[in-house]
Amino acid sequence: MSTFGHNFRVTTYGESHCLSVGCIVDGCPPGMALSEADIQPQMTRRRPGQSAITTPRNEKDRVEIQSGTEFGITLGTPIGLRVMNENQRKQDYGNNTMDLYPRPSHADWTYLEKYGVKASSGGGRSSARETIGRVAAGAIAEKYLREAYGVEIVAFVASIGNEFLFPPTLAHRTASTNPEFLKLIETIDRKTVDSFLPVRCPNEESSQRMEKLVAEFRDRQDSIGGTVTCVIRNCPSGLGEPCFDKLEATLAHAMLSIPATKAFEIGSGFGGCQVPGSIHNDPFIKAPSVPALHTGTSPSVPRPRLTTKTNNSGGIQGGISNGAPIYFTVGFKPPATIGQAQNTTTYDENEGVLEAKGRHDPCVVPRAVPIVESMAALVVIDAVLAQQARQMARSLLPALKSQQ
Amino acid sequence: MSTFGHNFRVTTYGESHCLSVGCIVDGCPPGMALSEADIQPQMTRRRPGQSAITTPRNEKDRVEIQSGTEFGITLGTPIGLRVMNENQRKQDYGNNTMDLYPRPSHADWTYLEKYGVKASSGGGRSSARETIGRVAAGAIAEKYLREAYGVEIVAFVASIGNEFLFPPTLAHRTASTNPEFLKLIETIDRKTVDSFLPVRCPNEESSQRMEKLVAEFRDRQDSIGGTVTCVIRNCPSGLGEPCFDKLEATLAHAMLSIPATKAFEIGSGFGGCQVPGSIHNDPFIKAPSVPALHTGTSPSVPRPRLTTKTNNSGGIQGGISNGAPIYFTVGFKPPATIGQAQNTTTYDENEGVLEAKGRHDPCVVPRAVPIVESMAALVVIDAVLAQQARQMARSLLPALKSQQ
Amino acid sequence: MSTFGHNFRVTTYGESHCLSVGCIVDGCPPGMALSEADIQPQMTRRRPGQSAITTPRNEKDRVEIQSGTEFGITLGTPIGLRVMNENQRKQDYGNNTMDLYPRPSHADWTYLEKYGVKASSGGGRSSARETIGRVAAGAIAEKYLREAYGVEIVAFVASIGNEFLFPPTLAHRTASTNPEFLKLIETIDRKTVDSFLPVRCPNEESSQRMEKLVAEFRDRQDSIGGTVTCVIRNCPSGLGEPCFDKLEATLAHAMLSIPATKAFEIGSGFGGCQVPGSIHNDPFIKAPSVPALHTGTSPSVPRPRLTTKTNNSGGIQGGISNGAPIYFTVGFKPPATIGQAQNTTTYDENEGVLEAKGRHDPCVVPRAVPIVESMAALVVIDAVLAQQARQMARSLLPALKSQQ
Amino acid sequence: MSTFGHNFRVTTYGESHCLSVGCIVDGCPPGMALSEADIQPQMTRRRPGQSAITTPRNEKDRVEIQSGTEFGITLGTPIGLRVMNENQRKQDYGNNTMDLYPRPSHADWTYLEKYGVKASSGGGRSSARETIGRVAAGAIAEKYLREAYGVEIVAFVASIGNEFLFPPTLAHRTASTNPEFLKLIETIDRKTVDSFLPVRCPNEESSQRMEKLVAEFRDRQDSIGGTVTCVIRNCPSGLGEPCFDKLEATLAHAMLSIPATKAFEIGSGFGGCQVPGSIHNDPFIKAPSVPALHTGTSPSVPRPRLTTKTNNSGGIQGGISNGAPIYFTVGFKPPATIGQAQNTTTYDENEGVLEAKGRHDPCVVPRAVPIVESMAALVVIDAVLAQQARQMARSLLPALKSQQ
Repeated sequence: MSTFGHNFRVTTYGESHCLSVGCIVDGCPPGMALSEADIQPQMTRRRPGQSAITTPRNEKDRVEIQSGTEFGITLGTPIGLRVMNENQRKQDYGNNTMDLYPRPSHADWTYLEKYGVKASSGGGRSSARETIGRVAAGAIAEKYLREAYGVEIVAFVASIGNEFLFPPTLAHRTASTNPEFLKLIETIDRKTVDSFLPVRCPNEESSQRMEKLVAEFRDRQDSIGGTVTCVIRNCPSGLGEPCFDKLEATLAHAMLSIPATKAFEIGSGFGGCQVPGSIHNDPFIKAPSVPALHTGTSPSVPRPRLTTKTNNSGGIQGGISNGAPIYFTVGFKPPATIGQAQNTTTYDENEGVLEAKGRHDPCVVPRAVPIVESMAALVVIDAVLAQQARQMARSLLPALKSQQ
Repeated sequence: MSTFGHNFRVTTYGESHCLSVGCIVDGCPPGMALSEADIQPQMTRRRPGQSAITTPRNEKDRVEIQSGTEFGITLGTPIGLRVMNENQRKQDYGNNTMDLYPRPSHADWTYLEKYGVKASSGGGRSSARETIGRVAAGAIAEKYLREAYGVEIVAFVASIGNEFLFPPTLAHRTASTNPEFLKLIETIDRKTVDSFLPVRCPNEESSQRMEKLVAEFRDRQDSIGGTVTCVIRNCPSGLGEPCFDKLEATLAHAMLSIPATKAFEIGSGFGGCQVPGSIHNDPFIKAPSVPALHTGTSPSVPRPRLTTKTNNSGGIQGGISNGAPIYFTVGFKPPATIGQAQNTTTYDENEGVLEAKGRHDPCVVPRAVPIVESMAALVVIDAVLAQQARQMARSLLPALKSQQ
Repeated sequence: MSTFGHNFRVTTYGESHCLSVGCIVDGCPPGMALSEADIQPQMTRRRPGQSAITTPRNEKDRVEIQSGTEFGITLGTPIGLRVMNENQRKQDYGNNTMDLYPRPSHADWTYLEKYGVKASSGGGRSSARETIGRVAAGAIAEKYLREAYGVEIVAFVASIGNEFLFPPTLAHRTASTNPEFLKLIETIDRKTVDSFLPVRCPNEESSQRMEKLVAEFRDRQDSIGGTVTCVIRNCPSGLGEPCFDKLEATLAHAMLSIPATKAFEIGSGFGGCQVPGSIHNDPFIKAPSVPALHTGTSPSVPRPRLTTKTNNSGGIQGGISNGAPIYFTVGFKPPATIGQAQNTTTYDENEGVLEAKGRHDPCVVPRAVPIVESMAALVVIDAVLAQQARQMARSLLPALKSQQ
Repeated sequence: MSTFGHNFRVTTYGESHCLSVGCIVDGCPPGMALSEADIQPQMTRRRPGQSAITTPRNEKDRVEIQSGTEFGITLGTPIGLRVMNENQRKQDYGNNTMDLYPRPSHADWTYLEKYGVKASSGGGRSSARETIGRVAAGAIAEKYLREAYGVEIVAFVASIGNEFLFPPTLAHRTASTNPEFLKLIETIDRKTVDSFLPVRCPNEESSQRMEKLVAEFRDRQDSIGGTVTCVIRNCPSGLGEPCFDKLEATLAHAMLSIPATKAFEIGSGFGGCQVPGSIHNDPFIKAPSVPALHTGTSPSVPRPRLTTKTNNSGGIQGGISNGAPIYFTVGFKPPATIGQAQNTTTYDENEGVLEAKGRHDPCVVPRAVPIVESMAALVVIDAVLAQQARQMARSLLPALKSQQ
């Protein structure tokens, strides 16, 4: 099913060659200011080589709100969102090369196995265009999280091929023990990330090495993967549901649902498996006091009284957020579409050579940045709404004598 | 919510100190032979240092079927499963050390933040005992998958600390390009894995190095993590739902929901991000013919006509299984309970020193093996039932003229 | 949440004054011929005074498929459907009468209580326009059910005010014991129902009495309710999930979710509560043989070997369909919008008189007919897909020795 | 699936002849005092001829909490509940009469059609024993609703056969326009209802007529049905989700999921279809002030500022509760098990005569009273938790300028 989330529920539709793509966002809190202007920037960042500050003239992938708001305010009812497709395929062109071969490491073959129907776009819903609905919905989620809790979600490119922003070392088998990394995730913002376009790796030197590497792959008509790291700051504590819907589990689910992803790690990740428990454990310390979020009529949300001295846990313990920054890394494989000829086999089991035409993007990792942010927002808002219900439910009970 | 799956749905209950732990399995196909003897072996493998061939005398964690079967046959109705707890806490002992401190990197603090109630067991549902219900349910799922499709699910320890079964090398940045690894996952079985107890790493030399490493950590009253690799063979093609419930996404969700996990990778994983697309792409070849599964009255399930020459995809493309072996690796952090004293802070924000008493397991990765297998089975059966519905729905439609 | 169904899942969006209304249909089987022409007739029947055979010229409520089909064939992916609104409200007109008063027995007040935001349309989502998405989705469901099983769903008006098609009598406290009623539901079709427009009650005399009654209420600027009876023929047996999702329970859910409904009865209904068990029980008889549905390549679906002699059960026993016709009746209250002045109270707690302007429909029951049919189709297809999964899952297991 | 509810989710297991029946309650708010003593009274009322004040000595259907509480306080984690069966069937007795015939209007036949497996109990999950889990879960829900909002849920028998507590008259085609009925539902409590055992109809004269009627049916070895009316007082406003999960829709779903139910009406119901809109509409009036619920530390929940003068809506408008008493009626068919011989057909399609042995209950309606109350509680708490989430989500947003 094309639905994500339980309390803030996104249902998407659309493939490459149909009339439009879009989604329905159900469960958005009522009474929030919302217009297309809140959504469009991330839509634009998702397009090749664009930053949020790009001029919106002649914009493509223009989102249009169908329902759920009135006079710029959310009603609490489902928000319909639509983006037109420009590349509709009106008729079946028959046996061209693309129709003869399932493309290697694309979804053409598996979609046929699943549905028994061959879509002209190959794996129709596996198209990158499917992510448009996610990004639109994520922008709405983010707005709520920012307004209600001051949540900040920022992703950036952490590696391309074997060029790393924080290469693993003997001293730091995981970036989670590296103070420089921790400092970066405390402060990084989207504007800074976009200032390192086209690669979106927020470090001058790494960024240049990555750009050079991508150029090499482009020239060879080959492709290369990479990783994106994302941090969620000011996330309230208590998010995540034991035992199957731990917060890291739903984050992993969300991230591995993005096309071309192969790996996920939270906090110390795979590197943390090599760190002794005596170092990996995050001792508790008293939390610094934090100013109230809103000075207006809305209540501020209290921050936890304790926090952790280190953060190998990545802000989540026992599957539940502890209020510290949540950070994770997602691995993207090299794009399957390459210019080189490939020896493979047709749908009819005949061996042959497939050659893709046209220009291809040798590395999609920088474009994945807003998609990762969007999916993170969808996970967090869903967990927030669940926890808000629990807190309010509890608050209405008479006080217990023996408990606080 | 403590529920996993949509079509084969498992709901678990229980924490460390209550009367019992267990689950309800809803959606098990009717007409399958099932008794406690099908479930107990994985329950036993889950206990410290046990193999499936251990004598069942004086067995602990004995599972009892409450409902859903009659005369050893599943009725199709919910299967209640229960395992008694032996360590119930009958009253509150008040302010002992454990009650003063939230244990570092445990769930004590976050559960209190979430629920506002301090359970005597700390994070009650984050206990390893919670996994009993998963393993029991997984054993039922596995039985169906084996009987209907011949599915085989085998997990093993791939690393402990910095001792690896297949260390990454310049030639093989990911095991997925290593022929030795591919050969292992084609053939490995549980009996072989258990013959390498206590570490469950199926290689004499690696196994000994890991055992030695664990002993060192035990002697230092420290702990260490590691990784588990799991392979699913004979999985039917067409499993996994676009776009949010891709098969790797639900696998990642399942694995990151296991206590102490920090990372997940499918197929080539993080290493695959460094491999050029021209090598990473899996070309198609004609699939070898496979004998029918059942010679009895049941129909055999046809295998796909094509398969891939290499398998960097890990058996999943575009989120959908292609019939090739599915394999993935899960990272476990070092256990949070260590014998060493830890400087930390009490619930009341006072700094102090926490010392845990008793013997502690310095490495839980070998015990995680059956849990990983069980969660994999739950993911696959849920996807299988969804795909069966789709196939049967389609089969009842009149044939289309223009399609195959 | 604005979602209905688990396996065939419909999510709707839209209120009266927004850009468009529509829905996403997820889970439609792949490989089915589908175009707007399959959907439009029920959309048209839903409009005031229209039959399916009305000329489509200058048609309103024109549905547009956004996705999920290609070259007229369903892909198995989500089907986006959209219908433009013509009555958008571009700005807030401020304190007119409608904005001062919550209209009696409308949703204005309760929507404000729920969301804390006052929509210009009063209870935005409670608008009759919301049912457009249901009818569109229902038409797709119906097409599948018809093609795969020959299912026929026909609803008609059974009463308006105190004019009944089958008035309860001492001999027949429920229509379920009345042979004339049983004969009608065996044969009635939509064309016949529409030949009795504007009331859609398939009996000349009753129809005329009803028309006269509605005219009286119209002249008094008052309104009146009524009931709709619906029959589902050729429904496969085995549908409905114990114990919470019995087929009558999900039908009741579906029907009471239609605006203005107050009551539901399945089979003998409330009248059946007065019938002795010895008469109410439906004895089993051998079922007549039924010709195979398709003569083409598709398999026919076998009908049950037994059926019931009488049908007080309404085709459902123990919550599960038995293959006999399923029939039920839905009660609709009189429309809340009336021309008469009403003494009531403003949002600001001031007493006053509310007068609605314009022409109002004194009786909406005839228009409810296609909505009832659509919701019935959504219930049945969801249950069909669940049961298909179960049947296929069971069919792959090895045969049991002791069972058939 | 055997699951009810989204936020307060009940999953049940068990049939007549297995080891135990029970359920898992997931989503119960943490910090509530809860023990078996809160649950047992409704369990006891569910047994034949028992009131809540019956002495608990030698009690049957004794419920045992497995998990989710500690020291008598809910932890917020799943609550496992179990009740032992006393009537286990240890082996298959073969071809006795019961095994040859599908009992008329029982679930024996449809369960076989559904699952392809014949359970010894006929339709295993359709057994009345299945309702034990509902009643246990409902008692927990009720406790929360009472403590947090002062909600009172009371059901009573409104008719048996053709003996009515409030027979429909020309003046009052629906009880909703009858002041006596409205007065009764404002004040009725469970103690009063149980004082009219065995029929639970709270009126001396009606009660005696009903008792006599049941005796007649018993003597004839026949059975008779009836109706149960239920009122929910002090229900907060704003409950119910547009558009598919209107509060009356989920109530109808819940009620029609109870074994032997055939009909449901909310507020004016079927009778209301005959009442002119000018009378049926409920005008608004200023609500009387209500004292705060708790005088302790918990906040009181504000009541709506407006209420309705009449209550034909049954406390729900546009699918959303308005704060007025919610009331509805449920129809139960005559029990299918009767002492008389019945001409019917065997599983093998042979005509014959089925005679049931032993004593049978000629009317189960009085026992349905606590089941109706329990299902009502499950519906309301699920809606309450959804609405609490919405309210808290909205409360954290900054205030809008133009809105209140």
